[in-house]
Amino acid sequence: MSQPATAAVLIIGDEILSGRTADTNIVSLARFLTALGIDLKEARVVGDDPAAIIGALNALRAVHDHVFTTGGIGPTHDDITADCVAEAFGVALREHTEALAILERRYGDELNAARRRMARVPEGGKLITNPVTDAPGFQIGNVFVLAGVPKIMTAMLDDVATRLTPGRVVAARTLRITGVGEGTVAEALAEVARAWRQLSLGSYPFGLGTGEFGTQLVVRGRDRAAVDAAVAELAEALAAQGVEAVEV
Amino acid sequence: MSQPATAAVLIIGDEILSGRTADTNIVSLARFLTALGIDLKEARVVGDDPAAIIGALNALRAVHDHVFTTGGIGPTHDDITADCVAEAFGVALREHTEALAILERRYGDELNAARRRMARVPEGGKLITNPVTDAPGFQIGNVFVLAGVPKIMTAMLDDVATRLTPGRVVAARTLRITGVGEGTVAEALAEVARAWRQLSLGSYPFGLGTGEFGTQLVVRGRDRAAVDAAVAELAEALAAQGVEAVEV
Repeated sequence: MSQPATAAVLIIGDEILSGRTADTNIVSLARFLTALGIDLKEARVVGDDPAAIIGALNALRAVHDHVFTTGGIGPTHDDITADCVAEAFGVALREHTEALAILERRYGDELNAARRRMARVPEGGKLITNPVTDAPGFQIGNVFVLAGVPKIMTAMLDDVATRLTPGRVVAARTLRITGVGEGTVAEALAEVARAWRQLSLGSYPFGLGTGEFGTQLVVRGRDRAAVDAAVAELAEALAAQGVEAVEV
Repeated sequence: MSQPATAAVLIIGDEILSGRTADTNIVSLARFLTALGIDLKEARVVGDDPAAIIGALNALRAVHDHVFTTGGIGPTHDDITADCVAEAFGVALREHTEALAILERRYGDELNAARRRMARVPEGGKLITNPVTDAPGFQIGNVFVLAGVPKIMTAMLDDVATRLTPGRVVAARTLRITGVGEGTVAEALAEVARAWRQLSLGSYPFGLGTGEFGTQLVVRGRDRAAVDAAVAELAEALAAQGVEAVEV
């Protein structure tokens, strides 16, 4: 069986690092990729700084099958992602005929020089459809350049999805135990994890510091039969401790 | 004037990359640091993978004044942050006397081997108080190792704050224009940005694709007088275009 495809996300924007805006694009992209059976391995957030953007992009695209950037493709002076991607790839940034036509249709007489910047695409780039505000993203090589506004970013994923080869999706099952801290079941969990090294077993407490606390135990893996067997073993080990687990 | 201190954040956990959990620690840390006048320059998210954690930690701590990690310090087998930090620093991971005493007080008879793992601290590390569930974080060198559960992570920041030297806080002012896209005001904004290169001017659209759209223009910088002057110039340039701006 071939290795699952890997991906990285690069979030671009001073507003995330200043705390002005809470990022939601990482989790949206994580869920999108997980549903396609692609493993998100890393996410990075950098500011509107060419050296930081180019450095991170080149580091990520060298080691992952796919890289998704968000942010910095609007019409203002601080929108420098296209410039940085072109520089990272060592290609020219050119006005893209089709992108310009899209912007002309949308803006008509209001297509000023600033908005026209959004037609600039690194040479060899292929447009990504934006069904919300029309100004396209683009793909070059293994890099997908998406808008930062979450509503537009997620809408662009419809087009992106058609260009990705889905892999075998990771199966995940979750057991919830209430009123029991993760330390109480850690040894049982570790024992099952040792027996099933090809799976990922995680423990996630909830309600800590309140009366409604507990733990969610998650078993993940591409081999559904193995996941099922590990969950059965885990449930049995928990029952032997007198801990009641409910699948959620 | 000395350079502002810089910081990086390293979020650790498979659950963020799988999309199971939406991270909120980046924005919390961003706001905490911004309030202290410390510049958050980069954030990364990696999974529960020693090579990824150690690699990212060493890259970040080499170039930033402070690094804040979140996640992976609980009692279960997938909590490997302390091990990775010790390895990154090339020091031993030892049971910390004070940490053990804290856990003994909290858990009493329920302090099993798994929970006792939470007393392990890299040699030279100094504990960080956890007022929610007691199990401490720790600081070693310029690295602060915090819990992943947001309620605990943010509570730990009270102790962390006492160890950081506040810098001059960035002043930020925001002008909101309604019913006007950012492309319409991009040239005015760029002109002010060119005149004030020591400031950061950003443009953030809202309500795109709806009838209630508009743009927020943000001017940021440590020199408050410069920020005020730039905002005045920007407001004047907008008024000259017939665009009404409201400070928010």
